[in-house]
Amino acid sequence: MHALGTHLLIDLKDCNPEVLDNLEEVRDAMVSAAKEAEATIVDVSFHEFNPIGISGMVIIAESHLSIHTWPEYGYAAVDIFTCGEQIKPMEAAAYLIERFKCKNPSVIDMKRGMLSVNGEKLPHKITGSHLQAVSR
Amino acid sequence: MHALGTHLLIDLKDCNPEVLDNLEEVRDAMVSAAKEAEATIVDVSFHEFNPIGISGMVIIAESHLSIHTWPEYGYAAVDIFTCGEQIKPMEAAAYLIERFKCKNPSVIDMKRGMLSVNGEKLPHKITGSHLQAVSR
Repeated sequence: MHALGTHLLIDLKDCNPEVLDNLEEVRDAMVSAAKEAEATIVDVSFHEFNPIGISGMVIIAESHLSIHTWPEYGYAAVDIFTCGEQIKPMEAAAYLIERFKCKNPSVIDMKRGMLSVNGEKLPHKITGSHLQAVSR
Repeated sequence: MHALGTHLLIDLKDCNPEVLDNLEEVRDAMVSAAKEAEATIVDVSFHEFNPIGISGMVIIAESHLSIHTWPEYGYAAVDIFTCGEQIKPMEAAAYLIERFKCKNPSVIDMKRGMLSVNGEKLPHKITGSHLQAVSR
């Protein structure tokens, strides 16, 4: 079987709360994680909430990374959704576990878009030489 | 048990390909879905890829909605991640199924951040009167 997307659902418990509450740290960690995965970054959007917590997205040509942090619980929910075979989402996950000083991580690897059941590969829309993101 | 977040993983097969390939339609559908869920929209970012396909995120005060479309397969992968009890993510999912004319949807409801095991509710960071998103 072949899927269009790989989706890592990453629950990070027992992280360093100070890192999770620092907008610049969280944004830099997520952007760096995208680079660890060898993704092509298209857009970055991070927001801090009152009184506490950060939400952010990194849109990549190969799909996205997202994070929501609860510093008060030392917890962050991260998703890394990728397509294509060039990209390395698990390296991004490992990077974030280290960066957030997470002592209790879990990673679930889900396949999205299981459209082919006879083993053939589905061509995916992003190939290096054809990549062209249009922002509006 | 009580979780911080509700995460709907939505696979939409057999959708109308023309809708999935129309940036304005996809963006409007996702923003409207966020409103159906009674979410507070913080940021919106949508991108069209060459030759085909759209990726987009709606960051909401209560977390996010994301979509990646493969019009060539009539397929879209949608995620709706929410926290709090006021919000109605399943209504957003139903709205998108209708909007994309999806004939073969699946919705998985995952709980994220299962930090409380003794039944007590965890207060969440977003409450209506304290909501204040800071964009930088």
